[in-house]
Amino acid sequence: MPTIKDVSKLAGVSVATVSRYLNKNGYVSQQAADAIAEVIDKLNYKPNNIARSLAGMKTATIALMVPDILNPFFPEVARATEDAANAYDYTLILCNTDNNPEKEQKYIETLIHKQVDGIIISSYTIKPEQLEHLQKRKIPVILMDNHLSGSSIVSLMSNNFNGGKLATEHLQNQGCRKIAHICGPIHITSSRERTNGYEVIAKQLDSFTPSLIAYSDFTVKGGYRAMQELIQKHPDLDGVFASNDLMAAGAIKALQEANLSVPTDVKVIGFDGIQMEMMSPEISTVAQPIYEIGKTAVDTLVKLINGDPIETYTQTFEVELQVKQSTSIQSK
Amino acid sequence: MPTIKDVSKLAGVSVATVSRYLNKNGYVSQQAADAIAEVIDKLNYKPNNIARSLAGMKTATIALMVPDILNPFFPEVARATEDAANAYDYTLILCNTDNNPEKEQKYIETLIHKQVDGIIISSYTIKPEQLEHLQKRKIPVILMDNHLSGSSIVSLMSNNFNGGKLATEHLQNQGCRKIAHICGPIHITSSRERTNGYEVIAKQLDSFTPSLIAYSDFTVKGGYRAMQELIQKHPDLDGVFASNDLMAAGAIKALQEANLSVPTDVKVIGFDGIQMEMMSPEISTVAQPIYEIGKTAVDTLVKLINGDPIETYTQTFEVELQVKQSTSIQSK
Repeated sequence: MPTIKDVSKLAGVSVATVSRYLNKNGYVSQQAADAIAEVIDKLNYKPNNIARSLAGMKTATIALMVPDILNPFFPEVARATEDAANAYDYTLILCNTDNNPEKEQKYIETLIHKQVDGIIISSYTIKPEQLEHLQKRKIPVILMDNHLSGSSIVSLMSNNFNGGKLATEHLQNQGCRKIAHICGPIHITSSRERTNGYEVIAKQLDSFTPSLIAYSDFTVKGGYRAMQELIQKHPDLDGVFASNDLMAAGAIKALQEANLSVPTDVKVIGFDGIQMEMMSPEISTVAQPIYEIGKTAVDTLVKLINGDPIETYTQTFEVELQVKQSTSIQSK
Repeated sequence: MPTIKDVSKLAGVSVATVSRYLNKNGYVSQQAADAIAEVIDKLNYKPNNIARSLAGMKTATIALMVPDILNPFFPEVARATEDAANAYDYTLILCNTDNNPEKEQKYIETLIHKQVDGIIISSYTIKPEQLEHLQKRKIPVILMDNHLSGSSIVSLMSNNFNGGKLATEHLQNQGCRKIAHICGPIHITSSRERTNGYEVIAKQLDSFTPSLIAYSDFTVKGGYRAMQELIQKHPDLDGVFASNDLMAAGAIKALQEANLSVPTDVKVIGFDGIQMEMMSPEISTVAQPIYEIGKTAVDTLVKLINGDPIETYTQTFEVELQVKQSTSIQSK
C-alpha cells in the first residue's frame, strides 16, 4: 500500500506539502499540486490513509517547554514551532517551566503519560538524566538554544560566539572606544558564548577592564540596573553590547534617564532580534533566525518520530547584524 | 468511594488546592494542608483516584485559540490560562488562528478529533455556527474578550465601556482640553466599547469633532501612523487615548519624532495593562485583570467539563486606571 512518503518522494515535494494538498490547508504551488495529483493517480494512493501513513504518529501532539511565555523571546519560538507543527497536522502543547526543575520534572511525567510524540525543550535547567529518561520511553527530544555536552540529544543553537563578536565589532566600527557589556545568566550556554565573543574583541581595546562587564538576568529591569551601575563606574563609556534585546531596552531607558543620548553619546546594541518596534530609538541587534530554528526543530523532531535518519545532532545557525537607530552614526 | 470534590468540600478549600496538595506542586497554606490531611484521613480517601475522580476528564487537555501569540496581549492570556490549567492537571494546546476563519475551522475539527475536554477562544472571527457545532459535540467552550449576542456560550469580558470613559476622564483631569482617540478594529466588540466610552466623555468637550478619532488596527505601526495623521489634522491636540497599549507605544513614538514631548506637550494613555516596562516614558493604561480573566476562564471551563452548575453566562471584569509617566502632570 503506498504511503504519503511515497507520494512525497515521487512528486518531488515534502511530506508537509502533500499533507497541505490533501487537507486543502495552506499554500501549495500549482506545479506541486499537479505533480502530487499525478502521483496519487498513478499509485492509486488513498488519502484516507493519512493518519496511519504518518508512521509513528500516535497522538499527533508535540510539546514545547519554555521558561516563561511572557518573555517576548518565547512567543516568537512558540509561533514558529506551532506554525511548523500545524503544517504536519500536529498540535502543540505549551508548558511554562519557570526554569523550576520540579515543575519541569512534573511536566515530563505528564507528557510521558499523555504519550506526546515528541518534545522541544527551550528551558535551561533541564538535566541529562531527564533527557535519558525520555529517550528510554522512546520520546524524541530536541533542545533549542541550549546544549548538553556529551549527550546524544539533537540541539539547535545560534552562533552566539560569532554574534557577540559581531555586536562588539560593530560598536567599534561605529566609533566606540570604551565598550561595556551587560551579560546574561552565566549558567546559560548561549549567554556565556555571547560574552566570550565580546571579550575577544573588547580585550583588544586599551580601554578594556573587567569592570566594563555587568552581570544581569536577561530582563528589562536587570538591564536597566546594570546600565546604572556601568554609568557610575565608567561615565566615559560610549558603547554597550547587551546580551539580549530586553536588557538593551532597559539600558537605553537608564541612559535616557541619566540624560545621555542614544546613539549620540552612547551606542547600544542587543541580541535576539525580537519585535521591539515600539522602542525609540529602534534597537540595533544581532538577530537569531528564530523562525527558522523553530521550524527546523519541528522538522527534525518529526524525522525522529518517524524513525527517519537525521544528518547531525548539533546544528548551528548563523546570526545577522541588524543596524537600527541605537547605533547609528548619522545623528552624531 | 470519596472523591477529590468531597475532600475539597469538607476541607473548605478548592479542588485545585487539593490537587496541588496531592501533587506536591504549587503553594498550599499550612492551614489548608492541615485541613486537607485531616479530611483525607477521615474519609480514607485514596489519592491514586485523582485521575478518575476528576469526573469527565477525558484527555485532560484543553485548547486555547488566540489570533497570534506574537501580539504581547496573548502571551499574558496564555500564561494565565496555562497556570490555571496546570493547577487542575490539564495541559494546554496553543492554536494561532490569525483571525483566519478557515484556519479556525480546521483547528476546531482537529480539536474535536483529538477529544480535547474544552476550548477557550480568544479569537475574533469565530461564528455562532462553529460554537453550536462544538456544543453538539459536547465540548464546552468559553469566549474570552469577546461576546456573541444571543448565544448561550459563557463569555468573559472586561468592562471596556467604563475603561474608555476612565481613560478619557483621566486625560481631562490631567488638564487635557483636546483629546484624540486611536480606536481599534470596529468589528471587535471590546474595541468598539472602548471607543463608545471615549465618545461619551469627549463629546462633552467643546473641542470635540469626529476627526479626532483615527481608525487603526491594534498594532504599534498602526498607532504610529494614526498618530501622524492626528498631529497633521489637529496640531493643537494635548491628549490621546489609544485603545490598546501597543497603539499607545506607536503614538508616543510618532509624537517624539514630531518633537512633541510626552507628557509635557501631549499626554497618552493606553488600554490592556500588558508589560511595557521598556518604554520611556512608561505608559499610563487602563489595565484589564488579564490573569484573573484567564484563571476564571479555566475555572469555569472545568466546571462545564465536570457538569457542575455555573452562576452566569456573561461575566464582566472591572478595569483599573494605572497612572504612569505618559500622563503625569509633574513634568509640565
